Amino acid sequence: MPKSKKRHEVCRHKDRGHYDEQTIHQILDQGKICHVGITVDAQPFVIPMAYVRQGRSLILHGAPKSRLLNQLAKGVPVCVTVTHLDGLVLARSTFHHSLNFRSVVAFGTARPIEDLAEKHAALAALTEHLAPGRTQVARAATDQEAQATSVVLFEIDDASAKIRNGPPIDSPQDMMLDVWAGVIPVSVLEGEPVPAPDLKAGLVYR
Amino acid sequence: MPKSKKRHEVCRHKDRGHYDEQTIHQILDQGKICHVGITVDAQPFVIPMAYVRQGRSLILHGAPKSRLLNQLAKGVPVCVTVTHLDGLVLARSTFHHSLNFRSVVAFGTARPIEDLAEKHAALAALTEHLAPGRTQVARAATDQEAQATSVVLFEIDDASAKIRNGPPIDSPQDMMLDVWAGVIPVSVLEGEPVPAPDLKAGLVYR
Repeated sequence: MPKSKKRHEVCRHKDRGHYDEQTIHQILDQGKICHVGITVDAQPFVIPMAYVRQGRSLILHGAPKSRLLNQLAKGVPVCVTVTHLDGLVLARSTFHHSLNFRSVVAFGTARPIEDLAEKHAALAALTEHLAPGRTQVARAATDQEAQATSVVLFEIDDASAKIRNGPPIDSPQDMMLDVWAGVIPVSVLEGEPVPAPDLKAGLVYR
Repeated sequence: MPKSKKRHEVCRHKDRGHYDEQTIHQILDQGKICHVGITVDAQPFVIPMAYVRQGRSLILHGAPKSRLLNQLAKGVPVCVTVTHLDGLVLARSTFHHSLNFRSVVAFGTARPIEDLAEKHAALAALTEHLAPGRTQVARAATDQEAQATSVVLFEIDDASAKIRNGPPIDSPQDMMLDVWAGVIPVSVLEGEPVPAPDLKAGLVYR
């Protein structure tokens, strides 16, 4: 990669690149799973993890023996990416077919959260992000449970967002073809709650 | 990472690991965006890309000047990950909250597809995967368009799937808490087609 380019610079379709924190944080806040990239012995690993943003950091967690968590805690270079697919862009030509999406690519390093109070707060924030409202109703974590979890704070040094939205952009000579063009919106649907088979009688969801 | 462990081995929740091609291919075939990890000067990069599986390979494409495509074409070590979020798992305790998901982590290397006929076939397969049926109706790519696109074949050397599904698994002592437990299913919804604003009059979607 040419040294003159910054690692978080959007090079293709520069008009789709965004660097302001508001845009980046909005995209991060709308996701629940990020893809965490680290390198071990020259081999890249990309692992899906649950996360929550706090300020300019992401909270990640896992089992204490997790290979990934142990690597992260060492402070190695990390890249974390979050992507939302928003639409299938159907053009008059196959060449101009595309996807509408929003993504954030963030670079930085992680450090372990060891302090028990900080760990409890981080885990509660994670639960609340993944399942809003649940820290109000579910049993809180015990110290033993918090101790049995590895938590790291991934601190973002630099990041960029990339966004494509809107209709297809066809070549002028294709505009009069008899081919339907437009966008199939794609979204994430949360369905009807399915009670656990062993749910205590009389309990209803919310 | 201990040398005794294979790079694609699922180490945490081994019961959730799968190595058969059918499971791995099904998960890959249900996604449209993968996260491609490469390392440049010890810095990992994780970039979202559209893809389609063909046999034991994934077809990836981009602009000829794309940094990522140029790196991939060099044959560097690559990790490609695909993740589907299937549900929010709400337990009686915050500790046992979880996500239902299916993911594949695949390792291998990529090579450029240079042959024009092979390139046309690869791009058509990609369009057809992203937008089923469209290669039947949209104008096919010209040689010039295919030449203006970089296409690489990511050949999977080894891969694993990881799947969590089903209800929450709470501790026995929490089972009688007055806390609703179960799963909120999460799925990807394709909405009503939105015609391009400049769509030729009289055309309807399918």
